[in-house]
Amino acid sequence: MKEVVLLTGALGNVGRTILSHLHDQYTWRLLDNQSPDSDFPYDVIVADILNTTAVNEAVEGASAIIHLAGDPQTSASWKSVLRNNIEGTQILLEAAVNSGVEKFIFASSNHAVGHYESDPNSDPSNPNSPFPLDGTELPRPGNLYGASKAFGEIMGRYYHDEYGISVLCVRIGNLNGDAPPVDYARGQSMWLSNRDCGHLFDRCLQAHYGYEIVYGVSDNDSSYYSLDRTRDLLGYSPQDNSAEHIS
Amino acid sequence: MKEVVLLTGALGNVGRTILSHLHDQYTWRLLDNQSPDSDFPYDVIVADILNTTAVNEAVEGASAIIHLAGDPQTSASWKSVLRNNIEGTQILLEAAVNSGVEKFIFASSNHAVGHYESDPNSDPSNPNSPFPLDGTELPRPGNLYGASKAFGEIMGRYYHDEYGISVLCVRIGNLNGDAPPVDYARGQSMWLSNRDCGHLFDRCLQAHYGYEIVYGVSDNDSSYYSLDRTRDLLGYSPQDNSAEHIS
Repeated sequence: MKEVVLLTGALGNVGRTILSHLHDQYTWRLLDNQSPDSDFPYDVIVADILNTTAVNEAVEGASAIIHLAGDPQTSASWKSVLRNNIEGTQILLEAAVNSGVEKFIFASSNHAVGHYESDPNSDPSNPNSPFPLDGTELPRPGNLYGASKAFGEIMGRYYHDEYGISVLCVRIGNLNGDAPPVDYARGQSMWLSNRDCGHLFDRCLQAHYGYEIVYGVSDNDSSYYSLDRTRDLLGYSPQDNSAEHIS
Repeated sequence: MKEVVLLTGALGNVGRTILSHLHDQYTWRLLDNQSPDSDFPYDVIVADILNTTAVNEAVEGASAIIHLAGDPQTSASWKSVLRNNIEGTQILLEAAVNSGVEKFIFASSNHAVGHYESDPNSDPSNPNSPFPLDGTELPRPGNLYGASKAFGEIMGRYYHDEYGISVLCVRIGNLNGDAPPVDYARGQSMWLSNRDCGHLFDRCLQAHYGYEIVYGVSDNDSSYYSLDRTRDLLGYSPQDNSAEHIS
């Protein structure tokens, strides 16, 4: 029998990419605050992440959760990230431990560490550079969205330590479809191709861990982030490299 | 002319200790959500930390803030820490940068790292022990109160990186008056005596820093925490040691 996985924020870019690659491998339960178009091929539970009754029902019987729901805008206001990202993640973690969910995979973000790039030593050729980052460093959010993601990581740490649930925080790079963004060096350095994204979340669901923070990007030549821990912990083996797409 | 310092949560234990030691050295502006007793010798602005109008007025003209306000209970509910600690700290940081405050001293807590003590390697004699902690490690909150304090540290990081305000996060130990707690080894290991507390916050106001996380405890023999960075960064020189009080 296939594993039951709850995917929150299922209609966003990351959610659709995961579904397009892994639709047959798991029994998906999809949650989103928007209704899908009529041609969307799966059932969706349409409910706000702050609707605890709906969230508790959606979690019931799932063995894993991939939590993507939240305001994804890097310019999101404090009011919005407080509600949608901070409160939403707490409600879902609480539902997960109450329901006996085994794995909680949290979509964190490169923006949780975006201000490392404003460090005066940030040039990777500088021996005092903080780069490449590998997930063991303290957060330095680049915006309030990033601060809300760093807080989700901390809440995951607490729920793991307190209740034993396995929690994996993936600092996702730049999902931009089948080719990296053009004329945007930062996006190229943290590009995550669609197929690498699908493979990555499959590994997140299959691997064993207690609590971890890892980076989720393709095997780009120009990366701010180390993939060593993602490879070692998850068996992640990316196939794409933004340098091969850029002339 | 004396420096104007805003002290939030002024009527709590830490606030009263700071005032008792440093009353003459600064021009204090006190904020609390409770009214003081009639014999309290200072004026207090009685307002909730979520009252942005009152908070903006309290911040105006201050060059530094010591932010103690919040729910201090280790058993505090999520609802309470979300409101009083998370929202409250954001409102105050926002007011501080809008008003040009130079230094923001944030009362963090040993509970931001309380779950290191549940680490299977936590015995300090184990070479893989995470102890002594020194403020460069990732948070591991021991309760939701501790999670809210860890989030305050992250928000301080963001406001420093984004706006340049100096932010110091002090993970305060166990303030228990003139003697350490009896029959409570954890409290003895992280005791902060009254006079060391007064001296510590004086150093926080006098020293220069960008963004830092340090521990605030006395010079206890049995400490989970390193004071090296507190001494080096702030010139902190504690006088008390819980071992000298315990037979």
